[in-house]
Amino acid sequence: MADGPTINTIAERAGVSIASVSRVLNGLPTRQETVRKVMAAADELGYVRNAVARSLKSRRTHQVAFAMADVGNPAYLAMLRQIQPVLKAAGYRLVLHSTDAVVEDEIAVLHSLGERYVDGLIMVPLRVTEAHLRMLATARAPVVIIGSVPDGTRVDNVRADSRTGVRLALDHLHALGRRRIALVNGPLDTVPGAARGAAYREALGDLDLPYDEDLVRIGDFYRADGARAVAELLAARPDIDALMCANDLIALGALDVLRAAGRRVPEDVAVVGMDDTDLAAASWPSLTSVSLGSAERGKAAAELLLERLQGGESDPRVVTVPPRLAVRASTAGPAYGKYTDGKYTGETHAGGKEGGA
Amino acid sequence: MADGPTINTIAERAGVSIASVSRVLNGLPTRQETVRKVMAAADELGYVRNAVARSLKSRRTHQVAFAMADVGNPAYLAMLRQIQPVLKAAGYRLVLHSTDAVVEDEIAVLHSLGERYVDGLIMVPLRVTEAHLRMLATARAPVVIIGSVPDGTRVDNVRADSRTGVRLALDHLHALGRRRIALVNGPLDTVPGAARGAAYREALGDLDLPYDEDLVRIGDFYRADGARAVAELLAARPDIDALMCANDLIALGALDVLRAAGRRVPEDVAVVGMDDTDLAAASWPSLTSVSLGSAERGKAAAELLLERLQGGESDPRVVTVPPRLAVRASTAGPAYGKYTDGKYTGETHAGGKEGGA
Repeated sequence: MADGPTINTIAERAGVSIASVSRVLNGLPTRQETVRKVMAAADELGYVRNAVARSLKSRRTHQVAFAMADVGNPAYLAMLRQIQPVLKAAGYRLVLHSTDAVVEDEIAVLHSLGERYVDGLIMVPLRVTEAHLRMLATARAPVVIIGSVPDGTRVDNVRADSRTGVRLALDHLHALGRRRIALVNGPLDTVPGAARGAAYREALGDLDLPYDEDLVRIGDFYRADGARAVAELLAARPDIDALMCANDLIALGALDVLRAAGRRVPEDVAVVGMDDTDLAAASWPSLTSVSLGSAERGKAAAELLLERLQGGESDPRVVTVPPRLAVRASTAGPAYGKYTDGKYTGETHAGGKEGGA
Repeated sequence: MADGPTINTIAERAGVSIASVSRVLNGLPTRQETVRKVMAAADELGYVRNAVARSLKSRRTHQVAFAMADVGNPAYLAMLRQIQPVLKAAGYRLVLHSTDAVVEDEIAVLHSLGERYVDGLIMVPLRVTEAHLRMLATARAPVVIIGSVPDGTRVDNVRADSRTGVRLALDHLHALGRRRIALVNGPLDTVPGAARGAAYREALGDLDLPYDEDLVRIGDFYRADGARAVAELLAARPDIDALMCANDLIALGALDVLRAAGRRVPEDVAVVGMDDTDLAAASWPSLTSVSLGSAERGKAAAELLLERLQGGESDPRVVTVPPRLAVRASTAGPAYGKYTDGKYTGETHAGGKEGGA
């Protein structure tokens, strides 16, 4: 494609100065005759008043960035699904950043706000470092953080409450009569791993159940890790009657092993996942799972940011989204729908619409 | 935030003309003394040379748009997961458009290319209308279409082959001895619905199986629609021995009903889905599914676009991604992994990593 007309070629064609063209295109007061000449030249040259030039004037890009670790992570996708329509309805385009779980990438995104390619940013940091806090203090555009930030940080902030989430799950299992509840956790040097481990221990205490190190297994957050951990656990402690899993993929791995080992779910071992992804409802038996409100957190973050973009100057706000327990067949829900005379009644919720593009 | 310094305030401070500031900031030849004055004034005023100003000069935004119907659709997400890293590695930001399956929204995205807020566009249109073709013919930036376009359209194009995909599934079911293979399809006025219906009929013909209207059911592309259709089908035609489903959600609904009706999968009825989403491996029995290569199509589209952005001037190219059949327990795969002495062996693949942000 050939280069289009520029401010310089318009000035030449119109026989006026570059400064005059700049004034006209930026809507500054200019003599009528000059305006006429510049607009005529711009039209003749096929000049399209572009978004970049407009934003130079208004200092608005009508773009908002969303930065998270990994586009493939269902929790972030649940946020994205909510953020996108809220911003679209308000006339903002969404710029997507995937930071690959690299802190330096997150810092670079914060730094790039100085380039003014977006009007604001929603970020889900893996953990909030000193470098984050320094960048946040001088950010050149409004930022909303999904995740916890240290007290006193001057930034809008949307939080989950995984501690209460784990507590809901353990209360549920306890009420079902389970007393040997194991934890299959992710790495303890991640924020979710550390938080879930501490919450498990605390909830056991509140329920007057002993904390038993043998019942805690650590792997990564994938299905194969869950399977490996539960296979070892079953050999070491065949008496377990419930599994609290740190996410849904780990729980799917647990179901694989329990099935292969001939343990009935939930009769012999009840299983709970976390994040309540689409996979929970798709699995069999369908999976009871703690929802940490990813969708709600995304929506809240988008709304907080919009308020700032519309000029809200209030103090930083903290929104905490309460967890929910989605009870399904892996603990206590009905295992089967009913089929009679050509009609099926039962839960059939899973996922978004698929058209198969 | 207060407005930062502008070209006008810099000119005032430097005691030079606006045109001079413009020349300096755009890197055009200017007297050394003027350059020095402008840069000093810009520094004093805390002027940050911004991305918008840079792109005015270079006519590059270093942004690429991806436009699809629905952020919640796993097939588009599979594309997005591949597009994002390819563009990121090449230094492009990704702008996401969700068109909500509205043709006018797609046209608006094509039209907005005239605003030059992106350097290029990858689009998955629901169907290609006359209005699309008009906009494509005069697009102000390179476009890659994922989906079919009419022959002779001057646009890079990445296609799936759902016809061969359906054929792979029916060959597989036929080889397993199935002869009463029903189709649970989506609406026939959608591109995938129409294509899958035609492919089913053609494949039956090639296999010398009769086409029986009773065995074809139409609903929407959701799990509940699949359940409803299969419940009716079981009542009308209890002799079916296989189900070809137009996507994975429909197939999950089919599994729900078959389980409730006491039909064993795959012994009594084999089930095949399409799109090979994460849900296929998460379900139980795990679901045999036709992959139409969403991930591969996304990657191919991103690579085609990058070539154009790097100045490639070749004729429009068409890339067709061949389908694959992922065989799992719902037709012929092993139903169980194995557990022995604290070790589990079996398939545990599903989904991306979840950290639970």
